[in-house]
Amino acid sequence: MGKATFQNLLSRLGGEQPPRVWSLLVTVFGDMAQEPGAQISGATLSQICALIGIKPEAMRVALHRLRKDGWIDSHRNGRSSTYFLTAFGRAQSAAATPRIYAPKPLENTAWLLVWNPALPADGDRDRPGVWLASNLQISAKPPKSASCLATEIAPGTRLPGWIGAKLCSAELAVLCQQFCNDMQDVQDALPSAKMLSPVEVAALRVMVVHTWRRIVLRAPALPDHVMPDHWAGPACRTEVASLLRKYPRPSLADLDAAA
Amino acid sequence: MGKATFQNLLSRLGGEQPPRVWSLLVTVFGDMAQEPGAQISGATLSQICALIGIKPEAMRVALHRLRKDGWIDSHRNGRSSTYFLTAFGRAQSAAATPRIYAPKPLENTAWLLVWNPALPADGDRDRPGVWLASNLQISAKPPKSASCLATEIAPGTRLPGWIGAKLCSAELAVLCQQFCNDMQDVQDALPSAKMLSPVEVAALRVMVVHTWRRIVLRAPALPDHVMPDHWAGPACRTEVASLLRKYPRPSLADLDAAA
Repeated sequence: MGKATFQNLLSRLGGEQPPRVWSLLVTVFGDMAQEPGAQISGATLSQICALIGIKPEAMRVALHRLRKDGWIDSHRNGRSSTYFLTAFGRAQSAAATPRIYAPKPLENTAWLLVWNPALPADGDRDRPGVWLASNLQISAKPPKSASCLATEIAPGTRLPGWIGAKLCSAELAVLCQQFCNDMQDVQDALPSAKMLSPVEVAALRVMVVHTWRRIVLRAPALPDHVMPDHWAGPACRTEVASLLRKYPRPSLADLDAAA
Repeated sequence: MGKATFQNLLSRLGGEQPPRVWSLLVTVFGDMAQEPGAQISGATLSQICALIGIKPEAMRVALHRLRKDGWIDSHRNGRSSTYFLTAFGRAQSAAATPRIYAPKPLENTAWLLVWNPALPADGDRDRPGVWLASNLQISAKPPKSASCLATEIAPGTRLPGWIGAKLCSAELAVLCQQFCNDMQDVQDALPSAKMLSPVEVAALRVMVVHTWRRIVLRAPALPDHVMPDHWAGPACRTEVASLLRKYPRPSLADLDAAA
């Protein structure tokens, strides 16, 4: 496949908004170098960024910012540098990894929780989910507090539209549906993994994971059966898992050898 | 059993507050003469009221009021009168009868209903149940409206105390527990139905049904499993059903013959 065609496919996976470079680098470290001790060479980072269309200066600024924020650190060997996640950066990355990479839904149960409106400071309210009112939440996590009524929203329960709109905004639904369509088209057009270089596979994975991450982390951590019909998340999750399986992560050694 | 002892037992069943006479007569008609065409003679009414401790003048005033309100009507035959429910009175009586006489719970399913707060005038909100907030209800009746989220409150769900207090006030809980204790004591002390006259059985049934009616109709129409532990309704229901079975309704002909 020609370089221009491959880059066109990559940019299609990136959606309409160009990614923020520091955020995209977070995805690179999360996908390629999340294990303790894993390091990415500056040369490999430059090659991945070049394929994605990130200018070298923008990459340097973003690496600086990530180091200043405590996400990454670096070693210098003569004229070359290697970069790696700090313990803090690794923890942040690990916290998001299950939701981004899960090939199946992580949540299977949804609870409707009613909190005592006379006790607004109840500590157990700090939980993932969607608030329908100040004392009413849909969450995948059952409550610890005895002052909360929890009823399960059983699979098959019909959720009204006004709740669906709170669980997934129209804007997020459009982003997700568009990404789902793009993923299907791009997977049809892509050559097999054997026909791609390690850095092309790395860039492909990063673009897919990055766009999906920006969608899935904006959706609530709730099982599919409570999400509205306009949410294409389940189909996207399948497409992402399928692509990542077909294009396995190249080793850092292979990437560095090619760089 | 001596007349004084029997009347003591009856008055114990009446609870601490003396019943309103017109309301007690509603119970008499509901228990003794709810079928179309059933009539109670003035003499029988007087005997039942006398046993319960209602003065003749108070009975006459109450009958006058019930006739004026359209609950009952009367026929005069020479010096004696007979009284009977109007169609309106019979309909009112029939509407309350299932809850008062049910030997088992009428409701088995409880729903937690969340209404769209932006649509406060939704027509389907006019339904039995308990409101926890302006858009949040516990009801035994599933919603018709598509704008309402309904989740079942499964048996075994632990309801927090602040909700229990909304389902059954402390005052109602005390009344119910007291009646339950009184029912058990009185049933132990009472002679068998064969040892009582028809009018004694009638007065006994009326006192039990009347006190229970004033309790059960103040409780929400919800299944037992959502009611708080302090609500003795299920035990009372069993006691009432047991007493009414042991002391069957005397026929109006037997009552009139004895009057």
